Amino acid sequence: MKVTIVGPGTVGMTLAYTLMLRRAAREIVLVGRNRTKAEGEALDMTHAQAFLQVPVKIRAGEIEDAAGSDVVVICASVPVPEGITDRNEMAKGNAELMRELLPPLAAAAPDCKLVMVTNPVDPLTWLALELTGFPKERVMGTGTLVDSIRFRELLSEMLEIHPDDLRAYILGEHGDRQFPAMSVAQAGGEKIDDTPERRALCDRAKSMGIEVFRKKGNTCYAIGLATAYLVESILLDERRTMPVSLRVDGYLGVSGVCLSLPAVIGKKGIERIIQPELNGAEQEAFREAAKTVRSVIEAVS
Amino acid sequence: MKVTIVGPGTVGMTLAYTLMLRRAAREIVLVGRNRTKAEGEALDMTHAQAFLQVPVKIRAGEIEDAAGSDVVVICASVPVPEGITDRNEMAKGNAELMRELLPPLAAAAPDCKLVMVTNPVDPLTWLALELTGFPKERVMGTGTLVDSIRFRELLSEMLEIHPDDLRAYILGEHGDRQFPAMSVAQAGGEKIDDTPERRALCDRAKSMGIEVFRKKGNTCYAIGLATAYLVESILLDERRTMPVSLRVDGYLGVSGVCLSLPAVIGKKGIERIIQPELNGAEQEAFREAAKTVRSVIEAVS
Amino acid sequence: MKVTIVGPGTVGMTLAYTLMLRRAAREIVLVGRNRTKAEGEALDMTHAQAFLQVPVKIRAGEIEDAAGSDVVVICASVPVPEGITDRNEMAKGNAELMRELLPPLAAAAPDCKLVMVTNPVDPLTWLALELTGFPKERVMGTGTLVDSIRFRELLSEMLEIHPDDLRAYILGEHGDRQFPAMSVAQAGGEKIDDTPERRALCDRAKSMGIEVFRKKGNTCYAIGLATAYLVESILLDERRTMPVSLRVDGYLGVSGVCLSLPAVIGKKGIERIIQPELNGAEQEAFREAAKTVRSVIEAVS
Amino acid sequence: MKVTIVGPGTVGMTLAYTLMLRRAAREIVLVGRNRTKAEGEALDMTHAQAFLQVPVKIRAGEIEDAAGSDVVVICASVPVPEGITDRNEMAKGNAELMRELLPPLAAAAPDCKLVMVTNPVDPLTWLALELTGFPKERVMGTGTLVDSIRFRELLSEMLEIHPDDLRAYILGEHGDRQFPAMSVAQAGGEKIDDTPERRALCDRAKSMGIEVFRKKGNTCYAIGLATAYLVESILLDERRTMPVSLRVDGYLGVSGVCLSLPAVIGKKGIERIIQPELNGAEQEAFREAAKTVRSVIEAVS
Repeated sequence: MKVTIVGPGTVGMTLAYTLMLRRAAREIVLVGRNRTKAEGEALDMTHAQAFLQVPVKIRAGEIEDAAGSDVVVICASVPVPEGITDRNEMAKGNAELMRELLPPLAAAAPDCKLVMVTNPVDPLTWLALELTGFPKERVMGTGTLVDSIRFRELLSEMLEIHPDDLRAYILGEHGDRQFPAMSVAQAGGEKIDDTPERRALCDRAKSMGIEVFRKKGNTCYAIGLATAYLVESILLDERRTMPVSLRVDGYLGVSGVCLSLPAVIGKKGIERIIQPELNGAEQEAFREAAKTVRSVIEAVS
Repeated sequence: MKVTIVGPGTVGMTLAYTLMLRRAAREIVLVGRNRTKAEGEALDMTHAQAFLQVPVKIRAGEIEDAAGSDVVVICASVPVPEGITDRNEMAKGNAELMRELLPPLAAAAPDCKLVMVTNPVDPLTWLALELTGFPKERVMGTGTLVDSIRFRELLSEMLEIHPDDLRAYILGEHGDRQFPAMSVAQAGGEKIDDTPERRALCDRAKSMGIEVFRKKGNTCYAIGLATAYLVESILLDERRTMPVSLRVDGYLGVSGVCLSLPAVIGKKGIERIIQPELNGAEQEAFREAAKTVRSVIEAVS
Repeated sequence: MKVTIVGPGTVGMTLAYTLMLRRAAREIVLVGRNRTKAEGEALDMTHAQAFLQVPVKIRAGEIEDAAGSDVVVICASVPVPEGITDRNEMAKGNAELMRELLPPLAAAAPDCKLVMVTNPVDPLTWLALELTGFPKERVMGTGTLVDSIRFRELLSEMLEIHPDDLRAYILGEHGDRQFPAMSVAQAGGEKIDDTPERRALCDRAKSMGIEVFRKKGNTCYAIGLATAYLVESILLDERRTMPVSLRVDGYLGVSGVCLSLPAVIGKKGIERIIQPELNGAEQEAFREAAKTVRSVIEAVS
Repeated sequence: MKVTIVGPGTVGMTLAYTLMLRRAAREIVLVGRNRTKAEGEALDMTHAQAFLQVPVKIRAGEIEDAAGSDVVVICASVPVPEGITDRNEMAKGNAELMRELLPPLAAAAPDCKLVMVTNPVDPLTWLALELTGFPKERVMGTGTLVDSIRFRELLSEMLEIHPDDLRAYILGEHGDRQFPAMSVAQAGGEKIDDTPERRALCDRAKSMGIEVFRKKGNTCYAIGLATAYLVESILLDERRTMPVSLRVDGYLGVSGVCLSLPAVIGKKGIERIIQPELNGAEQEAFREAAKTVRSVIEAVS
C-alpha cells in the first residue's frame, strides 16, 4: 500500500507519522518543494523503524514518484496569512498551486484516490476534479470530518459518552457555512436533542480550527489523525462512514459544487453517498453553504 | 487492573486470551471447579508473554483470590444439554450454581463490577443482584450485545458498510423475545429502513447462537470478544454505549426484571441507561420480553 | 493476504483468532475433516467483526480453497494418545495423514509458504518437503520456537527482564533432544551465564508442553500465538529472527534432517539461516538431536 | 498514568502525540514558557479523541501541575544555534535553564521518574541528579538510545533483518564520543562481525542526528518515538533493556559522570544496569567518553 503526501509540512508530516505508527501504509513518498527538508523528514522517520512491528519505506520524491500510489494526499499550501479569519482568503493562491501540481500528478498516478486537505478544501476539491478529470468517487476532501470530531469531543465532555459513540455530523462547508445535522444526531439509539447549549458547542467547534491556529500557529494533530482515518478506510477497504467533501449532484437540489456529506469510504474511494433526512433549517443551511462554496469556485475558475 | 474469570471454559478462556492480547488487564485470575485445568490454562497463556508489549500475570485461583478485582466475569455453567433450543432450559441448574458461587464472591470482592455471561443471562443477572446485594450499576449481563453484533454483521454484508457504523440494536431478552429497535437504527446519519429483508436478517441473527452451537458444540469468539469489549469499557473508563442486560426500573412501565437496553459503560459500571424512543410494536415486544424473563425469574426464585 | 489453516482444532482456531485480532490476514480459510464444525468456527469468528478495525473474511473450505494462499498452516493431527510422553508416538499416524493432505494441497497452492505445526514437527517438516517438492525456503515447522518462548518466560521471572529482551534460544529437536544455546544467550548486551539454575529452567521449559497438555488436555495459546508470530513475519515481510524447524544441509556436519535453527523469516519464507557459534557440548547436542529425528524420519519413510 | 512534558516543542509534542496514539498515558500535562502555545497544542490533540480507544486528558499547565506525575520528561531547550556541530555548545544555556526548571519541579513531583531529553543529555542528566537530589535510579537521559536505533536501521538495510532483532548498542556519550559495542552485538544468536563496512555505518549513525537537523531544522520522530518507548517501559513496568544515560559508579573504573549503558527500565526507573563485557578498544572508548562528558559537567558546574 503506497501513499504519496504532497506538501510535507506540519499536517502532511503528522499524517505520515500517524500512518507509520498505525501500520496502515507500507510505502510513503514525501513530495515537497524543498527537497532537502523532505529528505530530512524521511530520514527522521526511517530511523524509528526498530520500534515498529512492520518496517515502512519512507522517502522523499518528486511528483513522478507518486506513480503506483493507492492514495495521494494533497496538503501543500501557500503560507497561511497572519490573522486569517476565513479559509477562503487562501483560495486564489492555492488554486494556482493546484493548477501547477495536479495535472502532472494525475498523469503520474492516474488510478489513485485523491484526498484534498489544503484549504479552502471544498472549492479545491472541486478544482481537483476539474484538473485531474478523475471520476468523482476518486476525489474527496477532508471537509467537515475534522469539525465533526471537534464537535463530538465537546459533546463528549458534556454528555460523558465516548466521542466515537456520538453519531453527530457537522455538514456543509468546512468554514463559516457549516452546520450540525442535529435532526439525525444519535447516541446509543437515543436522539441527541437540539438544545441551545449544544448549538453553542457547535459554534465553538466551528471556531476551534481558527482558535488553535491562533494559539499555536498551525493545526496538525486533529486534522492529521482525521486524514489518517480517511486514508486507512480507503487503503484497508474498511467501508467506514464519515463526512467528506464530495461532488454533490442533486441532493436537496444542490449541484455543481463540493460540500461535506456522510459517505461510505472504501477501496474505490467514495463507495456510497449517504443522504440524511435533514429538517428544513438544515436543508436551508446546506443550500447556503453551497452558494458560498460556489462563489469561491467561480472566483478561482 | 485485575479481572477474575469464574468458569474458564471455552468462553471464559477466549475472554481471558482476548484481554491479554488487547492489553486491557494486567492481572487475570481463573477460578474453576477443576483447579488443575485452570492451572494448565494459566500456564499456557503465561508462556506467550514474550510476544506481548506488557507482560500480564495470569494464574489459577479460588473464589477468595477474586479479592481486589476491578471486574469479575461469571462464565461458569452447568453443561449445556444436547439439542438445546432455548437458553431458559439451563435456568434451574445455573441458578443453583449461582447460589453457590455468588455469595462468597460478593464477600471476597465487595467492590467489583460483576459481568454475567452465563445463560439464561437475563434471569441470572437478576439473581446476581439478589445474591450479591450489589447496587444495580455494578451488575450487568452481556445480554443482547452479542445478538446486536451478529445482526450488524449480517446488515454489513447487505449494506456494504463497516458493522461498527451500523448503529442498530437488538434489545429485550437474550433469547426468543429479542427484537431489533429498527425505529432508531442508523448508518452514517441515514435511517436504516425496516424492510422485510432486514427483519429476516434479524431472525437469522437470533438463531445464530443456536446454529453456531449446533455446528461446533459451543460459541466462544463472538461472545468472548463482545465480553472483552464490555470489560475494557469498564477497566479503561471508555464510556462506550452498548446494549447490556440491566435492571429495568420503570422504562415503558416495565420493572422488576433484567433486560437489555443500551447503556453507557464506564469505571462505575453502568454509568447511564439510554432510553431510545421505540415505536409501538417495539414497546410491545419489550414488554413481552419482560414477561418471559419474569416468568423464568419466578421459576428459579 | 490469504491464510489457509488445515486442521481447525484448538491450535488451528487459536491461530485463526489471533491472526484476526492482530490484523495480520485479510482472508482465512479453515479446512477440516468435519466441514460442519469448520463452518461453525468460521461463523463464530465472523460475528465478531464489528469490534475489528478491518473486517476479515473467514470461511470453511476444502483443500482446493487453499488456492492463492500466501501461507498454509498445517495443524491437522490424529488424536493425541492419552498419557503421551513423547511427540514421536504420533509420527506414524500423522505421517499417513500428511501423505493424504499434502500432495493435493501442493497442487492447489503451489506457491504458498508451508508452516508445519503438527507433531512430531521435525520429521513431518522433512516429510512435507518430500511430499510437496517445494523448495526448502518455503517449508518450515514451528519447531523449538514455542520451547524458546517458554524458556524465556521462565528466565524472565528469574532475571526480571522482559522475555522479548532475553535472546536465548532452544535449538535442536522439538522434543527430548532440544537444548538451550546458552553460549550465545544474551540480555541487553550481557551474556546470560550458564548456571545450574538456568539449566534447570531449560529442563522445566522442555517438559512444559507435556505438563500443560496433561493439565488441560491440549496446548493452544503459546503455540497459537507463536505460530501467528511466524505467519505474520512471512505475510508482512518483517524479516524477524526466530528458531524454526528447517532442512539442515551441512551445519555442524548435519544433513538430511529437519531441526530448529534461528532463521530470518520474510515474504519468501526462510530468507536466511543463522548459524550461531555453538560450544562443543551444544554442537554434540545438535548432532544427537539430528540422530533422533533422522531415526523417526526413517521409521515413517 | 500521568506524564508531564516540560518543553512542548517539536520533540516534546511528538512524544505527547506518540504516547496518546500508543495508549500509554491517561493524562498528559504540557508545560511551556509560552502558555498560549501549550494550550493550542493541548486543544489540537484533544480534538482527536474520537479516534482513540481510550480518551486521554491533555492540558497545558505550570510546573506545579506536574504534581502526581509518574514520569516527567524534560525537552525544554534554549534555541539550537545555527550551524551547530556539537551538542555541547548548548551546555551552558541549557544548564542555566535546568537550574531554573528542575528545583521547583522536584518540589512539585518529588516521586516522579525524570527523563532528560535536552542536550547535551549526558551532562544535563548529571546536573538533574544534582539539582533534584533524586536517587539515581529515578533520573535517566535518552542518551544513545536514539543513536542505537539509527545504527540498527542502517545495519538492518545491510543485513536485511528487522532492526529490533539487531541487538547492537551504541554506548558512551550521546555525541562524538559514542561507540558501537560490536564485541557484544548479535542477531538471532549470531555475532554481528565488526567489519569496516559496519564501522562506517556507525560513523554514519553518529552524524545522522546532525544531518537530519541540517536538512529539516530539527529532529523529532526518531527521538520522540524512542523517548515514548522509554517512558512506556516505566509506566507499564515492561522491564525492557535499552541504553540510557545514567550515573556510572565504578564500571570500568569510571565514576562521577553520566553516560549511556544498557539498563532494565521498569516502574522504579532504572531497575538494573547491565554491564556488557566490552573489549579493550571499547573500554578505552568508554573512558574517553567519560572524560569528555566530565569536562562539560565541570564547565557548567
